[in-house]
Amino acid sequence: MNKRLLSGMRPTGPLHLGHLVGALDNWVKLQEKFECFYMIADWHALMSEYENPKELERNSIEILADWIACGIDPDKSTIFVQSHIREHLDLNMVLSCLTPLSLLERNPTYKEQLRELKGRNIMTYGFLGYPVLQAADILVYKASVVPVGMDQKAHLELTREIVRKFNNLYGKVFPEPETVLTEIPKLLGFDNRKMSKSFDNAISISDNADTIKKKTMKMITDPKKIHLDDAGHPDICNVCSYYKVFAPGKAKEVEKSCKESKRGCIKCKGELADILIEKLTPIREKRERLLSDKKALIDILKKGEAKARLTASETMKEVRKKVGVVHDL
Amino acid sequence: MNKRLLSGMRPTGPLHLGHLVGALDNWVKLQEKFECFYMIADWHALMSEYENPKELERNSIEILADWIACGIDPDKSTIFVQSHIREHLDLNMVLSCLTPLSLLERNPTYKEQLRELKGRNIMTYGFLGYPVLQAADILVYKASVVPVGMDQKAHLELTREIVRKFNNLYGKVFPEPETVLTEIPKLLGFDNRKMSKSFDNAISISDNADTIKKKTMKMITDPKKIHLDDAGHPDICNVCSYYKVFAPGKAKEVEKSCKESKRGCIKCKGELADILIEKLTPIREKRERLLSDKKALIDILKKGEAKARLTASETMKEVRKKVGVVHDL
Repeated sequence: MNKRLLSGMRPTGPLHLGHLVGALDNWVKLQEKFECFYMIADWHALMSEYENPKELERNSIEILADWIACGIDPDKSTIFVQSHIREHLDLNMVLSCLTPLSLLERNPTYKEQLRELKGRNIMTYGFLGYPVLQAADILVYKASVVPVGMDQKAHLELTREIVRKFNNLYGKVFPEPETVLTEIPKLLGFDNRKMSKSFDNAISISDNADTIKKKTMKMITDPKKIHLDDAGHPDICNVCSYYKVFAPGKAKEVEKSCKESKRGCIKCKGELADILIEKLTPIREKRERLLSDKKALIDILKKGEAKARLTASETMKEVRKKVGVVHDL
Repeated sequence: MNKRLLSGMRPTGPLHLGHLVGALDNWVKLQEKFECFYMIADWHALMSEYENPKELERNSIEILADWIACGIDPDKSTIFVQSHIREHLDLNMVLSCLTPLSLLERNPTYKEQLRELKGRNIMTYGFLGYPVLQAADILVYKASVVPVGMDQKAHLELTREIVRKFNNLYGKVFPEPETVLTEIPKLLGFDNRKMSKSFDNAISISDNADTIKKKTMKMITDPKKIHLDDAGHPDICNVCSYYKVFAPGKAKEVEKSCKESKRGCIKCKGELADILIEKLTPIREKRERLLSDKKALIDILKKGEAKARLTASETMKEVRKKVGVVHDL
């Protein structure tokens, strides 16, 4: 039996290239090695989007289409919406009761998020408990593997502390999950800022060829390379870092000819656009096909959720017995 | 249609006279005026008992027997266990997302409880959220009436603030509940300290005649009345305050004869014991009858829970629509 893995995304808007290379490409590979649970984290989305959450429902269906279009296989992986599986909140409540406030208050990710999301009112009770719910998400499936970027390391450390606390109080129920640190290529938006929905600077998975071309042509290259025959500095060029991710076989040659003043930025971006269009077109087409039959998508979700519920309810049965809270009398 | 009322008790141990006169006698009357929802608050119990919660399950069934024995009528009122109705935690999560941390931190009841329950580790995330869950309990039934003792006033003020926040963000869904402040006679334990499970100084609803007698005879009377013919001071005598509650028709006469040195404390306590035995015996007997058929008790609960679930799920359907979180796609 393969080890169990859990990961998830918040349905806060259209997925973009950052999600693709930062998570989804990796998730697709992980399907072969682990029993994967992939979660549409709508409760977590509500924590930051509660002031304007109208889109959450639409987003959840779109993200499902995105995932499948990018290669997540519902026959291999268990896909579900967090709020559909009640055991997440049941376990969240149990863990909340034993999680010291101080553990959450000194959480570095919390402080960082408060800075990043400033402008939104997230000094709320719910947001402070973000890592507790995350622990519940992982533990309700007894997932022992969690793929995380470097910035998520602290969250998982919290999960491990909560596991130790629980197991000490009630006897061993949960494994301490281990992180699979995945090397995530940092892709900047086309304006050289962090790629982000709120900056509107990302190429979306659902963008058509025209839009991809337009956005790519806007990308900022080496500011010192003004004329075609100026020598470029590919190490500081955003376009070049895209080549490394999307056409690794070609990247060396591009760098060389750029440095040797043999390659202009317009041409360079035009070729990158073609590469991105080639990569994204089949995904977009599959995505559209999937979205044209929402009933089929919902059936996929229902199948995944039946499977998720089975595992989650088994865990909660065990937890309730240990903790003494009643469920079925 | 009568207004809806919600109240509850934490299943933390055997009920005693304080529960009877402080809440249950009142609940029985309220059944005639309101559509009552009475909740066995096991999640709230877990918040303070998580370090040693093994008894929660047994207590939930016993408290149900206590309630019915004391006159709560399952045909009139809706009785249920909090953790059995998933909508409580669903709404709790929605409300958590919009409840400012500062609102909870400056909650006077929180600070008081931290002092009172010291010795237990309740500086936890869950315990801080006690009033949010309480708001969810009330609002998931759109209860507009909540009977509370004076010390609960602050909690309900929080519920009202949360209602205003919710209705401002998403449109009016919830009524601002009003308190029915009930005059609760303060009964001390037989050692003159606050009546409390942890002091082991209370007469339980399930105590038999012998135990009631023994405990009553231990009660502390006016320390200045040493001999039968010393004049007593009934205004500082705990026994006298019991007379006022359990034999109001007789209390005046008892006070008078005590002041006039015509009544000894032993006799006074003996007669009080008889009064308490008369009051509690039918309750204890009914309680034992009920507990001898647990299946029937569970059936009562199931019936109540079906009714509670119907109301709660209707509310959550409305909430999810307003908030945009997915439930049934």
